[in-house]
Amino acid sequence: MNRPIGIFDSGIGGLTVVREVIKNLPNEDIVYFGDTARVPYGTKSPNTVIKFSVENTSFLLRFKVKVIVVACNTSSSYALTTLKNNFKLPVIGVIGPGIEEAAKATSCGRIGVIGTTATIRSASYEKEIKGIDPRLKVFNQACPLFVSLAEEGWLNDKVTYMIAERYLQPLKDKKIDTLILGCTHYPLLKKVIQEIMGKRVTLIDSAKQVACHVKKILGWGDSLSSIKRKPRYRYYVSDEPDKFIKTGEKFLGRKIGFARKMDGYV
Amino acid sequence: MNRPIGIFDSGIGGLTVVREVIKNLPNEDIVYFGDTARVPYGTKSPNTVIKFSVENTSFLLRFKVKVIVVACNTSSSYALTTLKNNFKLPVIGVIGPGIEEAAKATSCGRIGVIGTTATIRSASYEKEIKGIDPRLKVFNQACPLFVSLAEEGWLNDKVTYMIAERYLQPLKDKKIDTLILGCTHYPLLKKVIQEIMGKRVTLIDSAKQVACHVKKILGWGDSLSSIKRKPRYRYYVSDEPDKFIKTGEKFLGRKIGFARKMDGYV
Repeated sequence: MNRPIGIFDSGIGGLTVVREVIKNLPNEDIVYFGDTARVPYGTKSPNTVIKFSVENTSFLLRFKVKVIVVACNTSSSYALTTLKNNFKLPVIGVIGPGIEEAAKATSCGRIGVIGTTATIRSASYEKEIKGIDPRLKVFNQACPLFVSLAEEGWLNDKVTYMIAERYLQPLKDKKIDTLILGCTHYPLLKKVIQEIMGKRVTLIDSAKQVACHVKKILGWGDSLSSIKRKPRYRYYVSDEPDKFIKTGEKFLGRKIGFARKMDGYV
Repeated sequence: MNRPIGIFDSGIGGLTVVREVIKNLPNEDIVYFGDTARVPYGTKSPNTVIKFSVENTSFLLRFKVKVIVVACNTSSSYALTTLKNNFKLPVIGVIGPGIEEAAKATSCGRIGVIGTTATIRSASYEKEIKGIDPRLKVFNQACPLFVSLAEEGWLNDKVTYMIAERYLQPLKDKKIDTLILGCTHYPLLKKVIQEIMGKRVTLIDSAKQVACHVKKILGWGDSLSSIKRKPRYRYYVSDEPDKFIKTGEKFLGRKIGFARKMDGYV
């Protein structure tokens, strides 16, 4: 089915998901929407996050997308059920694929989750992990400063180490062996996080798992693309695109080139 | 004139301004609007900040306010001219009153300004200070992590000291004697900032200056209130009010009690 994949996020973080989708599905057209005028979602209330997520999905449907990927952990935590109930196409969040991989990876059954305040407060990771196996133990930690540190570009910095140590020490004390990076910004801080947690802790980067999951879902529905031409990647944002284009390339790992601001959207 | 004063901000930071207005004008009704669903403005583009600021002003006009106080530095930087041109009532920003005070306070003529990325990029402080006296030297520094640190509540923390030292060292090197806190969150970090800058640097907290300015403007227009009853303070937000009420009291220095979410606003 030669219709594009629709992916949305609160801002630029979801480009880490686009990156993996491109790697896994190099034949697919993609339409990305980043709600850069209202970013971040991670500090906002469930109802507001649901409202924004419904609007983002409606926007992507204009492009006749065949699947919606919710690349934002906060939206996936709060809005996934609403989106699934209200729209008649597959909606894939970032939480499910990440926890499946975490459940496979753990040997001691002790899994850590880090994310924004909203994601952690929603306890959605915990609920879903318990759904796989109620004996699994889940330990949560909100890391509200990580997004700012990633955007400030202090990726390998003494201050970042100190802050990360403070956030992660409670998880180390719990002797977890698997840690889910429950926010699309966190892969940028992977090196610092891995160093503090130690080599024996497996970090789960949801972006990769989501991409595999999208491939599987499209395969089931016989919905993979058969285009022969080069795929089209279109990027839309709700604020001016300049900063998105510049900072986004760090997340996407390739040139964005062009992004369009949706006027009158917010 | 017994109509209320309207004050808006991107979120909760503007409550530091409300606090000072209440102190200076204890007879006035106040309507406050915090755009908590779209906060922060400090990382967004001029056009988006202008659009949001116009919407916030229109909302406050429903309450027949007699003056608009733009308690957000980013809005004051980008939107003040548009608001003044489009609305027929006095519009007071946080920048003018702060720089007047800074110009009075400096003896060496070297003034520092700290703020969000957007405020600093707008160069609006610099332009206005030069307008007072072109011989004044202005040194800018964006401190993007300060808002998160203030909201995380790490007000007296080693990490905050380290980050503040890094941001402020260039200003120390410039031998400024006056520093404008160009963001409504920064008064919460005053202690750390003062300690790093040293006692001989005067910190300018715009909130206080704005309150004096409002009093002056209302006095000129013979627009001060003559109510005998206790004044009414009404708080509106665009996201759920819980967090605003809880965190806001730190900024306001008194109970908020009740805040209403504006449905359908954003």
